[in-house]
Amino acid sequence: VQYHAGVSEPTTRVTPLRWDDGLWLLDQRRLPWREEWVRVRDVGHAVRLIRSLAVRGAPAIGIAAAYALAAEAKRCSAIHSLRRAADRLATARPTATNLARAVAGVLAAVEAAPGHERAAAALVAARQQHEDDAEACRQIARHGAALFSPGRVTLLTHCNTGALATGGIGTALGIVRAIHSEGRLAMLYACEARPVLQGSRLTAWECVQDGIPVTLLPDHAAAGLLASGAVDGVVLGADRIAADGSVANKLGTYSLALAAAASGVTFVSAAPTTTFDLGCPSGSSIPIEQRDPGEVLTLLGRRLAPHGVAVFNPAFDVTPPHLLSAIVSERGVARPVTAESIARIAR
Amino acid sequence: VQYHAGVSEPTTRVTPLRWDDGLWLLDQRRLPWREEWVRVRDVGHAVRLIRSLAVRGAPAIGIAAAYALAAEAKRCSAIHSLRRAADRLATARPTATNLARAVAGVLAAVEAAPGHERAAAALVAARQQHEDDAEACRQIARHGAALFSPGRVTLLTHCNTGALATGGIGTALGIVRAIHSEGRLAMLYACEARPVLQGSRLTAWECVQDGIPVTLLPDHAAAGLLASGAVDGVVLGADRIAADGSVANKLGTYSLALAAAASGVTFVSAAPTTTFDLGCPSGSSIPIEQRDPGEVLTLLGRRLAPHGVAVFNPAFDVTPPHLLSAIVSERGVARPVTAESIARIAR
Repeated sequence: VQYHAGVSEPTTRVTPLRWDDGLWLLDQRRLPWREEWVRVRDVGHAVRLIRSLAVRGAPAIGIAAAYALAAEAKRCSAIHSLRRAADRLATARPTATNLARAVAGVLAAVEAAPGHERAAAALVAARQQHEDDAEACRQIARHGAALFSPGRVTLLTHCNTGALATGGIGTALGIVRAIHSEGRLAMLYACEARPVLQGSRLTAWECVQDGIPVTLLPDHAAAGLLASGAVDGVVLGADRIAADGSVANKLGTYSLALAAAASGVTFVSAAPTTTFDLGCPSGSSIPIEQRDPGEVLTLLGRRLAPHGVAVFNPAFDVTPPHLLSAIVSERGVARPVTAESIARIAR
Repeated sequence: VQYHAGVSEPTTRVTPLRWDDGLWLLDQRRLPWREEWVRVRDVGHAVRLIRSLAVRGAPAIGIAAAYALAAEAKRCSAIHSLRRAADRLATARPTATNLARAVAGVLAAVEAAPGHERAAAALVAARQQHEDDAEACRQIARHGAALFSPGRVTLLTHCNTGALATGGIGTALGIVRAIHSEGRLAMLYACEARPVLQGSRLTAWECVQDGIPVTLLPDHAAAGLLASGAVDGVVLGADRIAADGSVANKLGTYSLALAAAASGVTFVSAAPTTTFDLGCPSGSSIPIEQRDPGEVLTLLGRRLAPHGVAVFNPAFDVTPPHLLSAIVSERGVARPVTAESIARIAR
């Protein structure tokens, strides 16, 4: 990445995980109240931490699973047990394609190595994925920031697509960081992202850590804000991108896309190529995870609704390609979003 | 209202207020955890209870303010002090037009009465408004239920438009009650309605009280649910309806209207004619209340976001008439929604 004189490269103080003789995760369930690091004990523990959102974000859960498999290879390098571990990690959550891909990458490295080098090979592969994702974030930020140049911009984002969700500065939030590092960010609006509040708890926390100006809003306030003309662009991530450019992403993305389209606001999904799944022809073939009713019925241990009600709580929704202005990966920008433009920036 | 043999008239066990030698409010800030009745002490107390959402819903705050003025007339019948009280009550919240209208109605009755009959005249006027609203709810329910006949229907609603929000069975939720009393309601989906959770706390509670099947969802889950084809219609209320048919209503209504229009789902706003403001030419002339950032930053006394963030928290948004399938008042149905059809069902 080339930066002009006087413009600093976007960086962050935030990371969701580290390797220190084993995998450590910053427990995102405790943010913004406590910064608590958890050492991952074994594969079952890693699966539980991924499922319960101690680590979340499509790229970050891929990298976490890769390191978890490397940790398992250190404990026992028998190939059949590593295959079983890989299987459990790959299916911890269904929607993000990065997870299965990251685990498969480490497993391939393990299978190609002689028995006594499997643990080392696994760790090298996991570290490489981590570094590749950090570099992908930098390239996404560069491509994405150029979509909103020149001049000052006000952006709106959803969920958390930042350092906490990736191995680097983030995907959509990486674009925000790049624009901020150029001194051009007027304001970042962040949807709170019910039910788990990744916006209020994580994106707001990350922005405060790095001095990025941020304004929170209830999810349902975004459409009116976009209609008011106050926002220049919506930037958000993706958990899986199908071959036709349909984007499965955090619940609410589809709603925001409808609102942006109705108001003529630029709407950009940003994701590394590890998120693209060209084997999925369209949005309808992406599996959507249904999550625990408790996420909607309770908060911080307090009941929010009476007993006797049912809950509909999908983690993601699917946005059709015609509602997207552009999709940005580390390999460039698909605009307009079509099967052809997607094929060009996927790998 | 005429009901067929074998179909019971829709009713409810729920009421937000009662007159018992003074005005009593069911404190909706405490629901669904506690059923706590508060006796309104004076006009200042009434204003604080209205502002803090102890009573809410456009028709209910109108009726509450009418009774509060009647209570004040009992305490002191001097006309200048009643005018000042009316002024304070009418401006307690800015968006719902029912509030100013209800207070003006009681004040007119007071002004027309001789000094020693003012208190009685005020109470008669407030009771009449209460009864009129209950009857308006019944008529709205009848007109609205007919929009979804015959056969079983699945509906989606937003915020609380029920008995808790009115003097009767509710507006949009009155329609739901009518369809349920006809044995035709398959399911009511209710958005949780962040930040104050009128859906989770109030609509869910009301439905459980009356045995109406209800499924809660995060606000942002509605668009995907509508796209799935699972919902036959969206029914919600209004806080003010402009002459062109623009509807100011609970934050998120505009977002839901966009989603319903994109999926071809019938989208109905239901409100008594006290909610219509033909003096407002269009949506842009409706004042929108901005509420306390604390509603977004905290819940049940617990902080949800880090310090150092700003908040955008409008209570309402405006939905343009072209996104509405119909507006229902006690005087009938405006469909399509135009200045002409609105004029026909307003008064």
